[in-house]
Amino acid sequence: MMSAMSDSPAFTPLDDAAVAALERICGAERVLRAPEKLEPYTHDEHTSARGTPEAAVLAASIDEVAAVLRLANERHIAITPRGLGTGLVGGSVPAFGGVVLSVEKMARIIEIDGDNLSVVVEPGMVTGALQKAVEAEGLFYPVDPASLESCSIGGNVANNAGGPRAFKYGVTRHYVTGLCGVLGSGERFRWGGKVVKNASGYDLSQAVIGTEGTVAVATEITLRLLPLPPVVADLLLPFDDLFAAGRYVTALLRDLRIMPAALELVDGDCVRAAQVALERPVPHSDAAAHVIVELDGNDADAVWRSVEAAGEKAQSMGAREVLVADNPREREKLWEARRKVRDAIIASCPCRAGQDIVVPRGRLPGFLVAAREIAARSRMQATGFGHAGDGNLHFYLLGRGWEPKEFAKASPAVQIELMKKVLEMGGAISGEHGIGSVRRDHLRLATGAVELAWMRRLKAAADPNGILNPGKIF
Amino acid sequence: MMSAMSDSPAFTPLDDAAVAALERICGAERVLRAPEKLEPYTHDEHTSARGTPEAAVLAASIDEVAAVLRLANERHIAITPRGLGTGLVGGSVPAFGGVVLSVEKMARIIEIDGDNLSVVVEPGMVTGALQKAVEAEGLFYPVDPASLESCSIGGNVANNAGGPRAFKYGVTRHYVTGLCGVLGSGERFRWGGKVVKNASGYDLSQAVIGTEGTVAVATEITLRLLPLPPVVADLLLPFDDLFAAGRYVTALLRDLRIMPAALELVDGDCVRAAQVALERPVPHSDAAAHVIVELDGNDADAVWRSVEAAGEKAQSMGAREVLVADNPREREKLWEARRKVRDAIIASCPCRAGQDIVVPRGRLPGFLVAAREIAARSRMQATGFGHAGDGNLHFYLLGRGWEPKEFAKASPAVQIELMKKVLEMGGAISGEHGIGSVRRDHLRLATGAVELAWMRRLKAAADPNGILNPGKIF
Repeated sequence: MMSAMSDSPAFTPLDDAAVAALERICGAERVLRAPEKLEPYTHDEHTSARGTPEAAVLAASIDEVAAVLRLANERHIAITPRGLGTGLVGGSVPAFGGVVLSVEKMARIIEIDGDNLSVVVEPGMVTGALQKAVEAEGLFYPVDPASLESCSIGGNVANNAGGPRAFKYGVTRHYVTGLCGVLGSGERFRWGGKVVKNASGYDLSQAVIGTEGTVAVATEITLRLLPLPPVVADLLLPFDDLFAAGRYVTALLRDLRIMPAALELVDGDCVRAAQVALERPVPHSDAAAHVIVELDGNDADAVWRSVEAAGEKAQSMGAREVLVADNPREREKLWEARRKVRDAIIASCPCRAGQDIVVPRGRLPGFLVAAREIAARSRMQATGFGHAGDGNLHFYLLGRGWEPKEFAKASPAVQIELMKKVLEMGGAISGEHGIGSVRRDHLRLATGAVELAWMRRLKAAADPNGILNPGKIF
Repeated sequence: MMSAMSDSPAFTPLDDAAVAALERICGAERVLRAPEKLEPYTHDEHTSARGTPEAAVLAASIDEVAAVLRLANERHIAITPRGLGTGLVGGSVPAFGGVVLSVEKMARIIEIDGDNLSVVVEPGMVTGALQKAVEAEGLFYPVDPASLESCSIGGNVANNAGGPRAFKYGVTRHYVTGLCGVLGSGERFRWGGKVVKNASGYDLSQAVIGTEGTVAVATEITLRLLPLPPVVADLLLPFDDLFAAGRYVTALLRDLRIMPAALELVDGDCVRAAQVALERPVPHSDAAAHVIVELDGNDADAVWRSVEAAGEKAQSMGAREVLVADNPREREKLWEARRKVRDAIIASCPCRAGQDIVVPRGRLPGFLVAAREIAARSRMQATGFGHAGDGNLHFYLLGRGWEPKEFAKASPAVQIELMKKVLEMGGAISGEHGIGSVRRDHLRLATGAVELAWMRRLKAAADPNGILNPGKIF
């Protein structure tokens, strides 16, 4: 079960006494041990990251989480915290056996406080369900990762989740105003609350958000909300030239000064893969790229004028046509295709490696073309989709016609070359998926020794014995 | 020069060798030693926080900052980093002598990148000057502390500065995408860049922002920008009832779903103080409170409709009148009065203690009334103004008719009582001014032992010898 990482200490396998202690904490029915019960906890949505825990514990309260973490410190047991397992970098997959600590049973909304535009929620709550619950009261939680129907708020906090609407509305980090949970040390902490500003010492929520479960386990999360914008419309803009699409993204912001809720780009290859997966025709599937612009607001006329201005600008800059979706059914159809892209690419090619890079917004088309060239030199292909407004591209290196084993051998070097190109363009190797277990080499490429050592010390400040999610990030 | 804090180590006074070393690093002309040259570095904008450094060093590059910090680590010299000294909690005032490390000479805009909506700037740059420079290119940096004409971006980063527009646009933390500087250890670091999303390991910029110069000295700051909204209008809404003003703030957000750029409240006492300071009549200065609503957008008709809707709602909820400022001169006049409030209160009463609390938005009027009652029990007064949309109130405990010495003796206990009320209402003791040297007692009241110890370890992760801004926060 142990891996030979020189920088990770050996962990103690679970013995009968440890299992008995876990059962005393949570009750035997919430301590899973049988292989078939453990199977769901051996992977996330990443293709190949795999690891089997010795037990999975379904904690139901902060008391239980704290007791499990104290036990883990006493006995030096590796703990892998887990939300709903929809990550893409192996972050919730155990690297050293031990215990998966799942918060899936802690999934309640504790309070929706409309007057204070605030919601208090447990970490296992599904993000999309939370959104629906607050929208029913005219409130808005904008963060919308593509996995929103199956991912958890706790996982979103661990990964600082974004999504299409991050362009206008920001990422999870911008919405957490209160956090309560347990540090890796086993100590409980509480920070903030229903206060949208807080300068009471260091912001401890920021010390947890985006650390991929290596610092603390959140058990109660307070999020600020916005008034729900009543008017939303989407434009689908097919372009024959990727660079024209990129120039349009810049012009929309600079010349028209329009701040769309979302500003997405889907490479033609991805459009066509989605069309196959959807089993229905997607308009202009032969285009070089689709740009999706979502506009929202509380004034229907103003949103409509923005739709017209954005559409006219697009046509003047090379869009074939301007397709507008201004009712929920049409909008859902458009976004269904967008959200399907990832699964579609996975289904289309067994030899693939997904990445999640960011470059300064204006350099995105240039990166995609450079990536295609780099891939082609190794007889591979590259295709991408994602958040053009953020310069954040989810892209796939594909080996069409390759033997999986050969691709697995050859692709890491090509990926390193792609990451070097990202860094050369002033970008970052991950925009929102994180590092987990599978991208540690890329992090080392991107980050200096001082910065990595500082990150490790920040981890140690909360988790001195290193029991929390070992083998991730570092 | 040394203070007897049990939890701070003794620092080494500057000897001739240390001064010579500083002069070798920066040149003798940028190492200030004469008392009259040091005077500006002995205080900030706080009434009473005072401390004299042994030298002030005006660093001009990251090399110089790193060399000074290395020297400080070798010789155990206390370093107080300083922007432009406009803080309100003594944060940039030396508590242990030593060296004030000023970044005032590092005040250039390095690059405005319109296509990538990004600006790279040195820490000594004045925030308002940065705003004007980017606005000239149709770009927008929204963070607008009241001191914007005299405060620095570096100070804003150290304090996670907010301001009226934080309501819609967020605080400094939400705009920093890249940070370069020197840790307390003397090591240089670099994180991020012109990338608006970044999940490449821990977000190291967040480990610095808001830590009040106790973790690192930033030498280069990359900020994301927005397209400048071309249309802006302000409403001034005088209310005869503080609670009606509070209910209006809630209704604007919940019922009208309007997201103003700013949503301010000024207590009647503050309005009257500002009127005296301005030496011109302020309309409705006899009201119980003024609410200021700023609306912006890129559609003039939509902004105007919002102005009408917000105005009608205000009148239906008890506003005496709706005054609209929709041109730059009128708007500036309105905001001049708002920005003048702090100085006006200071001028109006020599016995005063300022605070910067936050409560959940809907509880703000209730807090202000409770604060007046608490003050009255000790024959004092309380008045406040600030960011109603954020529940963030800058309020002053006043001792009208008191002897300054008596007030100084009696007011701390009343302040503690006020802070307890804030915490009882689910609030935070500071919204944006921070802790510095003068609010450490309040932080201890608000923060548990686990959280404080964790903050200290986070500091030690970057500043193991504790040379950076000792005596602040902790």
